Amino acid sequence: MPAFVDEPLDRADARRTDAEGLRALLARPDARVLAFWRADPYLADGRPVLVAADLQPDAPTVFLGLDGEAPVFARSLAGSAPPPLAGAPADLRMAVGAMSPADGSVLGTARALFSWHHRHGFCSRCGVPTAPAHGGWRRLCPGCGTEHFPRVDPVAIMRIEQGDALLLGRSPAWPSGMWSCLAGFVEPGETVEAACAREAHEEAGVRVRDVRYVGSQPWPFPGSLMLGLACTAEGREVRVDPAELEAARWFDRDEVAALVARTHRDSAIPPATAIAHRLVASWLDG
Amino acid sequence: MPAFVDEPLDRADARRTDAEGLRALLARPDARVLAFWRADPYLADGRPVLVAADLQPDAPTVFLGLDGEAPVFARSLAGSAPPPLAGAPADLRMAVGAMSPADGSVLGTARALFSWHHRHGFCSRCGVPTAPAHGGWRRLCPGCGTEHFPRVDPVAIMRIEQGDALLLGRSPAWPSGMWSCLAGFVEPGETVEAACAREAHEEAGVRVRDVRYVGSQPWPFPGSLMLGLACTAEGREVRVDPAELEAARWFDRDEVAALVARTHRDSAIPPATAIAHRLVASWLDG
Repeated sequence: MPAFVDEPLDRADARRTDAEGLRALLARPDARVLAFWRADPYLADGRPVLVAADLQPDAPTVFLGLDGEAPVFARSLAGSAPPPLAGAPADLRMAVGAMSPADGSVLGTARALFSWHHRHGFCSRCGVPTAPAHGGWRRLCPGCGTEHFPRVDPVAIMRIEQGDALLLGRSPAWPSGMWSCLAGFVEPGETVEAACAREAHEEAGVRVRDVRYVGSQPWPFPGSLMLGLACTAEGREVRVDPAELEAARWFDRDEVAALVARTHRDSAIPPATAIAHRLVASWLDG
Repeated sequence: MPAFVDEPLDRADARRTDAEGLRALLARPDARVLAFWRADPYLADGRPVLVAADLQPDAPTVFLGLDGEAPVFARSLAGSAPPPLAGAPADLRMAVGAMSPADGSVLGTARALFSWHHRHGFCSRCGVPTAPAHGGWRRLCPGCGTEHFPRVDPVAIMRIEQGDALLLGRSPAWPSGMWSCLAGFVEPGETVEAACAREAHEEAGVRVRDVRYVGSQPWPFPGSLMLGLACTAEGREVRVDPAELEAARWFDRDEVAALVARTHRDSAIPPATAIAHRLVASWLDG
């Protein structure tokens, strides 16, 4: 199972609009406040770190939901350096693989929300500073009254098949030898399936058909929704757009098996935390 | 086929970054500029209306792509009343049912882009006015340098099945007798499947399982991506949240057949342009 797909909390969204009720939840002895520095979670031995409810009480705080009866919040601490707590802020993308699915998902939701808050301090409609509301799930504009909702960007990520091989590509920014599924943001006015076909053609010059949905994954870096697809290429010819990819090539079944087993002589795919891994690995299972 | 899912143009996204090339495309004799007033397309006899490239040349203009060789743009004309052209601005949601799939999709893409531009004149990061770029597919901030991308909001819309019946709900804002599929925005940190389960429970108190993806549809009012799903309810008990729905009830197969055929005595579902219609109608076919 990829990271971030667990849903361990009741999001209890009806509670978000009750500001007084949220203050009461935060004051409860069983309330947990997960510590972040900006958008990075504090971890100690790979586990989330809690912060006392009275440390930086005015720092951005989001209500994540209920774990049974226990209210769960997260707080984005300010400071030019991380305030001293147990553990230290971590790169969630690297750390999530060693975490429980529940911890990873809760921290991922908070990370996506904090990333959104950090990028949306001003009203896109009139330019004045906005204020968080609804337990961190809205921002309100005092100037024009617009209610801003967190942004979630859908991405089509695709397993491109042709006979007994898969097409993988690599970005010039990636570590040497790293290959993955092609992917791109779904544009306005476009179906998921059309985005898949467009990206395959733009990035690798490949025409695809029979686009099938495989599964989804939130990816909070900063706020994507990965829509995992499989599709079939009409041929094996590849024409890479160097503005998008450094290379793309076909991997046969033996190579794909080696990539999944991490025994390939010179190449690798993303870890099991990424839906790209699942797209590749599930192809081996037919 | 629902509206807006056709993809008649080559979006030719590599051309978007070439400002001089776009000016040359706009000047070509075979260029077409679709007329909008704000975010509403001009229609004459149900067909898109063209505007001369030199009418309000500084009004927001987006490059939609190539129809064969012909460049296709859209322009959002300003004015407290619609400038006089052939036809008149129309509500695309109402008009799309009488249009060709190609016209509907092209106008839908432009409508989504113009709606985004109208709501994003200022930088959400630093508050200064931004400027359109990349043929209307970006906005750039001269203050902090942020590049803003059009927003696409994923929505889970679901056919909830239980035995030989479907659960439909109605919003208090809808016309009397109108029923449709339950739906809600996918939140940060959430899979599509989890959003489906959460919305079914929040809105109607129903627990669902076996969430399957059916298909997608862009819905440019103002910028949603509908992700059509089917799922199975664990029981028939319904507990409506009055903040979300006015009512929800089960419709048996005969009633659903009457809804699809538009012969139901007192109830109706959205027209075939909406993915909700497809979700309901395709259930009858098994």
